[in-house]
Amino acid sequence: MRDQRDTNIPYKIYLSESEMPTQWYNVRADMQHKPAPLLNPATLQPMTPEELSHVFCDELVAQELDDTTAYFDIPKEILDFYKMYRPSPLVRAYCLEEKLQTPAKIYYKFEGNNTSGSHKLNSAIAQAYYAKKQGLKGVTTETGAGQWGTALAMACAFLDMDCKVYMVKVSYEQKPFRREVMRTYGASVTPSPSDTTAVGRKILAEHPGTSGSLGCAISEAVEAATSQPGYRYVLGSVLNQVLLHQSVIGLEAKTALDKYGIKPDIIIGCAGGGSNLGGLISPFMGAQLRGEETYHFIAVEPASCPSLTRGRFVYDYCDTGRVCPLAKMYTLGSGFIPSANHAGGLRYHGMSPVVSQLYDDGLIEARSVEQTAVFAAAEEFARIEGILPAPESSHAIRVAIDEAMKCKETGEEKTILFGLTGTGYFDMVAYGKYNDGEMTDSIPTDAELEAGFAGLPPQPQA
Amino acid sequence: MRDQRDTNIPYKIYLSESEMPTQWYNVRADMQHKPAPLLNPATLQPMTPEELSHVFCDELVAQELDDTTAYFDIPKEILDFYKMYRPSPLVRAYCLEEKLQTPAKIYYKFEGNNTSGSHKLNSAIAQAYYAKKQGLKGVTTETGAGQWGTALAMACAFLDMDCKVYMVKVSYEQKPFRREVMRTYGASVTPSPSDTTAVGRKILAEHPGTSGSLGCAISEAVEAATSQPGYRYVLGSVLNQVLLHQSVIGLEAKTALDKYGIKPDIIIGCAGGGSNLGGLISPFMGAQLRGEETYHFIAVEPASCPSLTRGRFVYDYCDTGRVCPLAKMYTLGSGFIPSANHAGGLRYHGMSPVVSQLYDDGLIEARSVEQTAVFAAAEEFARIEGILPAPESSHAIRVAIDEAMKCKETGEEKTILFGLTGTGYFDMVAYGKYNDGEMTDSIPTDAELEAGFAGLPPQPQA
Repeated sequence: MRDQRDTNIPYKIYLSESEMPTQWYNVRADMQHKPAPLLNPATLQPMTPEELSHVFCDELVAQELDDTTAYFDIPKEILDFYKMYRPSPLVRAYCLEEKLQTPAKIYYKFEGNNTSGSHKLNSAIAQAYYAKKQGLKGVTTETGAGQWGTALAMACAFLDMDCKVYMVKVSYEQKPFRREVMRTYGASVTPSPSDTTAVGRKILAEHPGTSGSLGCAISEAVEAATSQPGYRYVLGSVLNQVLLHQSVIGLEAKTALDKYGIKPDIIIGCAGGGSNLGGLISPFMGAQLRGEETYHFIAVEPASCPSLTRGRFVYDYCDTGRVCPLAKMYTLGSGFIPSANHAGGLRYHGMSPVVSQLYDDGLIEARSVEQTAVFAAAEEFARIEGILPAPESSHAIRVAIDEAMKCKETGEEKTILFGLTGTGYFDMVAYGKYNDGEMTDSIPTDAELEAGFAGLPPQPQA
Repeated sequence: MRDQRDTNIPYKIYLSESEMPTQWYNVRADMQHKPAPLLNPATLQPMTPEELSHVFCDELVAQELDDTTAYFDIPKEILDFYKMYRPSPLVRAYCLEEKLQTPAKIYYKFEGNNTSGSHKLNSAIAQAYYAKKQGLKGVTTETGAGQWGTALAMACAFLDMDCKVYMVKVSYEQKPFRREVMRTYGASVTPSPSDTTAVGRKILAEHPGTSGSLGCAISEAVEAATSQPGYRYVLGSVLNQVLLHQSVIGLEAKTALDKYGIKPDIIIGCAGGGSNLGGLISPFMGAQLRGEETYHFIAVEPASCPSLTRGRFVYDYCDTGRVCPLAKMYTLGSGFIPSANHAGGLRYHGMSPVVSQLYDDGLIEARSVEQTAVFAAAEEFARIEGILPAPESSHAIRVAIDEAMKCKETGEEKTILFGLTGTGYFDMVAYGKYNDGEMTDSIPTDAELEAGFAGLPPQPQA
């Protein structure tokens, strides 16, 4: 067993409560090329605060549109909630390093130590709090794999708010336990598409028997929020406001590393809508944008839903029902749905406009990986580091191991930091398939991608 | 929202690595009445170390039989493993206190922050380590709800040892996800009773179609260990050695409380086989036995499996197949099986001999609670404290809330400490039943208990 450790660096670095961040960091303030504004799909003009306020509560609209303020104070109530499960540990993967026999130093920021099982809670509590503060009665949202819905249900239970979750039908049926967690937290959970909304009824009429999609559930949740008083819609990824809230991940990680004089060379995050990646890298990217440091940032996405590596950087609908504003982002087209054999999340057709812009500016590398390789990394990690990772998080593990093995070849002692966004307790069907050797990969053909791109909306004039 | 907190006491008290215990505490050393020895069922004579060494590895036999040594050094390799997930947080339940509007101060020691999802890992790594050190190839065990099997699979994966788990058939079928977690960690999982052992074949012949029981799975695991070279049997509760390892819970809790000058008045743990309760209370009980402090200890058990509150303090078989030694303990008889509507663990017919003796000496209060009341407490706790508790742990939550409400009536500012042994991610079928209003209680009739007692073995002469 291992006995050669840096004795001055604990396995897990926990910040004390006094060291925890009290402000979120807005990376847009330091970006030379700002992310493009959301557009009204009818006029192709930037969405006004007034227009957005029908969908989002007022403080979140302000956060969404503000690309110059670098720091936002975290309200005391949210800080108090954070203290219930934060700081999250920054873990030195000593055992994995030894197993790999790599000279690389591997750290991971583990966000799964709360019942929602993922980093999603960081933004859920913020979005629910601002809605409550505005005197609203409740919020609506969509969920796919269920991590976001669970996080929002928890936040709403804590604040005693109503929570309506539209859950992609296939997940609703295949993940009854996720559904029950949300119900235990008092949320109402509706399989989507449903007949409770006009857009749901339309999709059902056009595609009877459909098992739903995230984009479709978004459309229903937005309609549910805007068609009744006292509700707003909230979203767990993609939006600027979400990346702002998730910056708490990177801020804690950077503070913990700085405390021990550690500077990561490579920073890796899985990328679906970009919430975890954006949150983790924000303060590091800010330091790089200000010319203080340089890092190698890697976004990891599934080969079956390769929005960064094979998508287009254009304006697209955020949802299948096309009720949301247009966002300029790397996208596969709002009609794109990953192959049915794709396990886990990271199945969104688009990508956070902030992450998309940073990627387009050459500040982030993107890499796509296949899921059998991802589950192999997940299993290796679980057995030696003890944490059963979510399939989403395991994309980052895969590339962290790959990079550590490169260091083994070259002898470089690079320091690698990756985001371990959550746990895989509710993904055991996928693990079972992998254990039984029944998991397969699937990479969309060029023709399949072209079909997705064919559904892109007309682009605004430059 | 709450804003009146003791600002000098954090939400979560984490010990630094240097403050973590380096020795386990053996409460037997301070007990005036020692727990009775295990007996050979054939001769009714105390089991010799040589006899026990066929079942357990040598160092564990020594720990099992030693009732005078107060402290055992924790081997460095186990300390290193502990650092991967320990110290576990001691949490001040500020939000629950506010919700209940109680003057009581409530703390819980949360043992669910590891993939096994429970405290079981504390003993699993110790038992696997000693087996490895003895040059053995692997270990066998049984699991019911799956927490122990998961913990052992994790420990064995880490140490690269073989792990054979006999899983109660009804759980094997109803909890496929637990099974997959164990397989992901590389364990082989066999539904019990099975045709892989003589005792399993016998039980199948006598009770075709049986859905199994913990006692039956123990019999199979013991046979599997003793009938092939290089294997030993390991057990997740009941045994003295397990309580010794689990003392790390209480030692950490006491150190953390002492650090802030906090003295608990009431200490509450759920009790199935006694591993968590015994581990949590050990160092506090030691202080009381030495006349240094006094505490009010409460063991909470399900009304449907009431070994302390309605059992008999006699010698009984530890397993259904009657291949194990006899233990003197509070028992419902080895043939007792809780009603089929009983959710979760805490379904063992007996109780740790240490806990049994302390209870018989009047040092512990025992209380039984019904499961609908338990799930109501679980849900209330989850919504306000954010952690989704295991049904087992929720027995302690129920009584902690009850005691806090008594404080509200009397105005007493008692300090309550309870053990939150694990998370309920794999118990969503039970939560679903509760959410749907379909959960019922069941209390065994006197006649049902008498039928269990009728199976007790002849008692040794005093």
